[in-house]
Amino acid sequence: MTVTQRRATPRRFAEVSALVEGEEGRFSAEIDPEWTIRDKPNGGYLLAVLGRAATWRGAHDHVIAASAHYLRSPDPGPVAIEAEVLRAGRSASQIRARLVQGGQACVEALVTASHLAGATVPYFDGGVPARGEAAFDDCPRLVSTMPGGMRVAIMEQVEVRLEPGSLGFTRGEPSGVGELRGWLSLPGGEDFDPTSLLYAVDGFPPATFDIEFAGWVPTFELTVYVRALPAPGPVQVLQRARLIDAGRLDEACFVWDRAGRLVAQGTQLAGVRLG
Amino acid sequence: MTVTQRRATPRRFAEVSALVEGEEGRFSAEIDPEWTIRDKPNGGYLLAVLGRAATWRGAHDHVIAASAHYLRSPDPGPVAIEAEVLRAGRSASQIRARLVQGGQACVEALVTASHLAGATVPYFDGGVPARGEAAFDDCPRLVSTMPGGMRVAIMEQVEVRLEPGSLGFTRGEPSGVGELRGWLSLPGGEDFDPTSLLYAVDGFPPATFDIEFAGWVPTFELTVYVRALPAPGPVQVLQRARLIDAGRLDEACFVWDRAGRLVAQGTQLAGVRLG
Repeated sequence: MTVTQRRATPRRFAEVSALVEGEEGRFSAEIDPEWTIRDKPNGGYLLAVLGRAATWRGAHDHVIAASAHYLRSPDPGPVAIEAEVLRAGRSASQIRARLVQGGQACVEALVTASHLAGATVPYFDGGVPARGEAAFDDCPRLVSTMPGGMRVAIMEQVEVRLEPGSLGFTRGEPSGVGELRGWLSLPGGEDFDPTSLLYAVDGFPPATFDIEFAGWVPTFELTVYVRALPAPGPVQVLQRARLIDAGRLDEACFVWDRAGRLVAQGTQLAGVRLG
Repeated sequence: MTVTQRRATPRRFAEVSALVEGEEGRFSAEIDPEWTIRDKPNGGYLLAVLGRAATWRGAHDHVIAASAHYLRSPDPGPVAIEAEVLRAGRSASQIRARLVQGGQACVEALVTASHLAGATVPYFDGGVPARGEAAFDDCPRLVSTMPGGMRVAIMEQVEVRLEPGSLGFTRGEPSGVGELRGWLSLPGGEDFDPTSLLYAVDGFPPATFDIEFAGWVPTFELTVYVRALPAPGPVQVLQRARLIDAGRLDEACFVWDRAGRLVAQGTQLAGVRLG
């Protein structure tokens, strides 16, 4: 049995995703043991670390599209990051980034970086689902002990707040719709930026919890589009299951800033022990 | 002015995406001049060529997730493909593949390959939109001359058949909904497989045509999930615009086989001269 010294204060996202620059295109990072689900680091968190490396230097500060394929889960602790610019264009750049631990590649990602605007007005949003209606303060915070006793340490770091209608799974009564709605806040109320939004689209529990509780799901692939610079404050999240077939699940995620603007979208393919 | 000798018979997908194996992990291919939009190869077609290379040998035959970032468009003609296995696992493998022309990387993709089943029964499909209702034969075939006179050569190779309700843009009357529904058939009625499904999710015109006609859109990123082995015959497609903001558009695509089974899904981020 492992006894972990628990920290009194959660560390900020900027700290747990910090990089130390080494030789050209190489970085080291320290994967935080608390940003985990059953001792495995959250996949969006790992993608955010890669996104930070991808935009470390170069003409474009903001990730607009990032696609990660997950090879094997790293353990918390030291990792190496390698980033290679594939093309540096005028309006966009492409970068390949990989996370390595103990000489083994764990996550590889492709990133397109460009420039994101602030408060533009969408020309069309007809294909975006409606946001939830419950305010941040009306959504109870999810605790780190899941049904069945599984500890999800990261829930003690970030605040996942679910609308009352999305909390059925905590009492064994999922709605069956396959949607979780609510809010996400970083430790210490740190504001989101395009890098931490890469985490945000994987910050919610699997939407399968609202269908049948079957534990966390291992992600094969996660794609994130960042659409705008977020306003300060927590973000509103909709995590939606689409198809569960032959032991695989895809989920779509929508993230709005506090001003109600869609700032990030995600899609992921995962394995699941349902169906 | 270029005069192109037009072929009497469209070439099959298996031919236009064929690879010639070279040294380890290297292939050559010939990008077909007719699988193009304004002389630029279709992005899904290029991803399919990369997917074919990724699964050329190795433990897993079927692409289940593929993510492409587009660096620059290759011209039709010879290209080199490089594929590197990142991890060969028991139930899944990950491969990186890139398409190079004249020494310049044009497309880089990450691929997860595994085994796809035939006719399983989905456990949950509550997050998947409804299929269109019009039969293949009730959907007129899209011609290769778009409004304004732009020639889309690939429309003479594949059959894109749109439901009557999705054809408004051809007479300057888009519905405003941002959805195109219909069917897609490969030349010669060739059946789809997991490789050609990578093309299928990019086979339809941009769903923006149903909002405002503004020409084709350049793709930054395309992610495809292949969910099942498709039944023989054409596939039914829904291409949906989600958000147009600050000159960028994301689209979701759903592909069903003739038996009504969701076999592939796509999402893409593109640039667009709207908004």
